[in-house]
Amino acid sequence: MDLKFLQELIMPAQTKIAMIIMDGLGGLPLEPGGKTELETARTPNLDALAAQSALGLTVPVGPGITVESGPGHLGIFGYDPIQFRIGRGMLEAVGVDFALEPNDVAARGNYCLVDAAGVVTDRRAGRIPTDVSKELSKLLTTQIEDVEFLVETVKEHRMAIVMRGPGLGSALTGSDPQKNGLPPLPVRALNPDSEKTVRLVNQFVDRARKLLAAYTPKQPANMILVRGFDSYPDLPAFSQVFGLRAAAIAVNPTYRGIAKLVGMQVLPVEGGMVTDEFTTLEKNWNEFDFFYLHVKNTDIAGEDGDFARKVSVIEEVDGLMPRLMALQPDVVIVSGDHSTPAVLKGHSWHPVPTLVYGKYVRADGIAEFGERACARGSLGVLPAKHIMPIALANAQRLAKFSG
Amino acid sequence: MDLKFLQELIMPAQTKIAMIIMDGLGGLPLEPGGKTELETARTPNLDALAAQSALGLTVPVGPGITVESGPGHLGIFGYDPIQFRIGRGMLEAVGVDFALEPNDVAARGNYCLVDAAGVVTDRRAGRIPTDVSKELSKLLTTQIEDVEFLVETVKEHRMAIVMRGPGLGSALTGSDPQKNGLPPLPVRALNPDSEKTVRLVNQFVDRARKLLAAYTPKQPANMILVRGFDSYPDLPAFSQVFGLRAAAIAVNPTYRGIAKLVGMQVLPVEGGMVTDEFTTLEKNWNEFDFFYLHVKNTDIAGEDGDFARKVSVIEEVDGLMPRLMALQPDVVIVSGDHSTPAVLKGHSWHPVPTLVYGKYVRADGIAEFGERACARGSLGVLPAKHIMPIALANAQRLAKFSG
Repeated sequence: MDLKFLQELIMPAQTKIAMIIMDGLGGLPLEPGGKTELETARTPNLDALAAQSALGLTVPVGPGITVESGPGHLGIFGYDPIQFRIGRGMLEAVGVDFALEPNDVAARGNYCLVDAAGVVTDRRAGRIPTDVSKELSKLLTTQIEDVEFLVETVKEHRMAIVMRGPGLGSALTGSDPQKNGLPPLPVRALNPDSEKTVRLVNQFVDRARKLLAAYTPKQPANMILVRGFDSYPDLPAFSQVFGLRAAAIAVNPTYRGIAKLVGMQVLPVEGGMVTDEFTTLEKNWNEFDFFYLHVKNTDIAGEDGDFARKVSVIEEVDGLMPRLMALQPDVVIVSGDHSTPAVLKGHSWHPVPTLVYGKYVRADGIAEFGERACARGSLGVLPAKHIMPIALANAQRLAKFSG
Repeated sequence: MDLKFLQELIMPAQTKIAMIIMDGLGGLPLEPGGKTELETARTPNLDALAAQSALGLTVPVGPGITVESGPGHLGIFGYDPIQFRIGRGMLEAVGVDFALEPNDVAARGNYCLVDAAGVVTDRRAGRIPTDVSKELSKLLTTQIEDVEFLVETVKEHRMAIVMRGPGLGSALTGSDPQKNGLPPLPVRALNPDSEKTVRLVNQFVDRARKLLAAYTPKQPANMILVRGFDSYPDLPAFSQVFGLRAAAIAVNPTYRGIAKLVGMQVLPVEGGMVTDEFTTLEKNWNEFDFFYLHVKNTDIAGEDGDFARKVSVIEEVDGLMPRLMALQPDVVIVSGDHSTPAVLKGHSWHPVPTLVYGKYVRADGIAEFGERACARGSLGVLPAKHIMPIALANAQRLAKFSG
């Protein structure tokens, strides 16, 4: 069932859908036979919601496949992440509010440290402060031949590099060796259309190296690494495909970026806490049909291997759920973009606990939101991209298919 | 998600995966409301393993589809059995260690008995002894025009016929009427490329009939039936697709054959018992990353309609499981290639009970290995081909998909 098929069935309605994404929500027990982070968390509000919901486990891309945030979000937003791809560079660029143009090529860059022999000694240059990084990015912004190189700091050592000009391709390998102790890799063109880009990127990197070496009074970095080259993705707009005025509420630039790429309106959040995100939700409730609200700290705690902290972030979200429910949403989805079990200290392939609540949901009557509870749910184990049509149906926004 | 997509994510690791396939494992109760063969069997070791596993029911090819061993095994080996096909003839030929060449055409043959009117009275010629059958196969081996007909007895009345020469096709119908009381069917070409093959096959069968009629002192068979014509399959190698040094442990030629066709190394088994297969597993444990161990007698008991014998074969395998677990495998899969319920006396379409065990498996905590227990498991009902990526993920052999 592709998006075009679905789009033909879309019909207007007054209903509202809220999608709460706890990043890396799915987990694992610390000990065999134990409970996961979500099962450990005290979540009276989510449990009560689960009792009135259909439960299931979502698979972001395919069985056994661990995903980055990009494909993980595309899946839960209803797009097939194998068919539709967004590279890292594009995500970073959109995340820092670059007003991208369709022919731009974007890459992810790192400020780094290399030794006298050119070997990378610190891929993150000690996570240099963001304000210092911003100074460096201004310095690196330039034009080479007929191509602009627009550099913007994302955070700390991370930058987005946007190339704008004629004849650019995005089929390039990166220079980041992915670990310290190795020299940067040569950037190579994977097709003839990208040869000009490689030539200019090499000039840009060489210029950056010289500028950083000459930086005074104190040198925060002496080299850059580039990777994740890609061009503007050809994604059908979320609002058009699903017939929704869609808003995104996220603090972290990457998630604001992906929401913008699919065509959601990204709302400002005053303050960086989850409670601030719920405040944004409340303030904008009347203006949109669909709200995506992203919680980052579940993933960060998982990546840090901090089981207890992940539990407490989930409990924090649980405590805010009454504010969402007070708005009387027609359909609520609570899920994640992938699993990040604390025991693995990273993203994993495990299916993601998911609930779909609504007046017309056939509720499973399972009063618990957790991995094992969701495994017993009536949604079964399903591709994440199936959640959007299920949500639309429950919001009475899909017409009958007559053949 | 196709094999090429998966192949790009493969990364090396030191982990080991063991796949125990009980042929025709899935079953049915003798009486409504009763237990299946697997549910009836006393399986303390498999039950304990199930408690630490994710459970599910695998569908070999598609809902409602009953499969032969070939597609059943392709599925559990991670190949789409509709996209990739291996015919019966090719399986039989590889099973008897024919050194096949890429342009060979192979068929399955039966020695049989026909009456004076040419009607088949016994499709298996009383399951003639293998040594007699081998004599007949030597007699039948010949060359017709520029094509060699290489005949090799598989077991009893079963033979593999390999045709080698220019201009052969494999789009042929078989002559086996599939039951006694009917005459052999005419072999027909399904496309013009196979017309020469049909002409020569008819000459070969006619020659065989005359030679068998003249065989002295005692005529064991007086006709042959041919079916399952096919050419060498174009399968990507298991080792390359999944990045595994893979070994196959099977006694029955058909299963050695399919393992060889996908590119596994087939290990010698001294003795024909399941315990001997486990001895081979132990002896070769250090040399490979992946082991496929095949148990044939569950299927034979099912085909014979012998519920109790199937139960006891399952119990025999259960008793050997501690020998596998003592090797400390990282990931264990226990499943079947299809169901063979004793009450149906044949293969069936029923999904196959499956467990996936491993340190990072999100265990369901269901301490029972059986059809109903697996229906409650978190793997859900899933295509058999999804098991390999799940196993690879749990063996930490798949990189993250970044879009």
